[in-house]
Amino acid sequence: MNEKVHKMSKYPKIPGATIRRLSNYLKALEDLESKNEKVASSALLAEICNVNAAQVRKDFAYFGEFGIRGMGYNVKELKFHIKEILGVNREWRIAVIGIGNMGSALLVYKDFLKQNYKIVAAFDIDPVSVIGRISERMGKPVEILHVDMLKEVIKARNIEIGIITTPPGAAQQIADLLSETEIKGILNFAPLPVRSHGNIPLRNIFFTAALDNLVYYLSN
Amino acid sequence: MNEKVHKMSKYPKIPGATIRRLSNYLKALEDLESKNEKVASSALLAEICNVNAAQVRKDFAYFGEFGIRGMGYNVKELKFHIKEILGVNREWRIAVIGIGNMGSALLVYKDFLKQNYKIVAAFDIDPVSVIGRISERMGKPVEILHVDMLKEVIKARNIEIGIITTPPGAAQQIADLLSETEIKGILNFAPLPVRSHGNIPLRNIFFTAALDNLVYYLSN
Repeated sequence: MNEKVHKMSKYPKIPGATIRRLSNYLKALEDLESKNEKVASSALLAEICNVNAAQVRKDFAYFGEFGIRGMGYNVKELKFHIKEILGVNREWRIAVIGIGNMGSALLVYKDFLKQNYKIVAAFDIDPVSVIGRISERMGKPVEILHVDMLKEVIKARNIEIGIITTPPGAAQQIADLLSETEIKGILNFAPLPVRSHGNIPLRNIFFTAALDNLVYYLSN
Repeated sequence: MNEKVHKMSKYPKIPGATIRRLSNYLKALEDLESKNEKVASSALLAEICNVNAAQVRKDFAYFGEFGIRGMGYNVKELKFHIKEILGVNREWRIAVIGIGNMGSALLVYKDFLKQNYKIVAAFDIDPVSVIGRISERMGKPVEILHVDMLKEVIKARNIEIGIITTPPGAAQQIADLLSETEIKGILNFAPLPVRSHGNIPLRNIFFTAALDNLVYYLSN
């Protein structure tokens, strides 16, 4: 609670579009860090993230000036600040429900670990057949549990975020189930919009959105 | 060319954030249509898409008023207009490169077909082993080609969009290859930022962005 108050006083409310870009800058900074780059100019970040340099500087101005004029931004320092702003400077415990192609892709998505997103449980309606397909995640065996155990395991493992990757027909049912747990937020990757109950924040994520955005740009 | 000019004169330039929301409204409308709903209120669309109703009305005001006061929007008509604005009222021919979990998920993603996104080629560095895993897409066998054939097939099949779903280590190399073709735009789902050449629009899409956005909301 104290931490939250501290945070709110430290940073102003930031628009959604800026948050989305901060998330991309963070990815760019991680990539630069992995290449041993110490400093990044706004022009370089702009190029990587497909925005203009003025936008980059404007976005960073929301939380104070970290750049050195003519030098650019300290990669490590900027990364630290963005993580703090986004709230990814601590571990988030995640469950993935529905281990088909998409669920499997998330289980082995290396960047989740880098960013403190820890998948601590995976569920399917047919765990036995799934286990045959998936063997390891980051050197550790993945335990696939039956979806009947969802509520109990979310409680026992302090899971805060549920990611739905079921076929479309099952997605709302899983959102309903998750809404009855202590989960704090839900992401839905199934290709139809679902809703949560009891004011649990839920985001529907569609792959078509990325394509629509590109196609709009190509068409205009 | 004429079509483009016509389009630009018909609709004003629309901000990126509105385009993202239009894409979500389109998904919501498709879902409502599949449930035989004829009319949708701004409040309903707002609820499904996780925005407020005033935002919905403001977004639609960019391209004229389609709603009937006190009645809501005609689902079919609104869908038609959004598709026209986004540029998804015609077929877009797509290649997917890298048929692991994520690539396989896209090959069977039912919504691509609904929205005129047609995957007409799939490539992998080891097509033989991939074919064992993937049998059918929408009743039709998927042909997985060796990535060596990329340039030739993109030309022969008039492919306009390339989607990169390779492991991170191969993604830039594929973006380089695609940049040497007639491709019009590139989406990268590999978990690191890559760049195109020759002014080909490229979007890096990270799953962490969806999580970052949710976590920011949960943290503030």
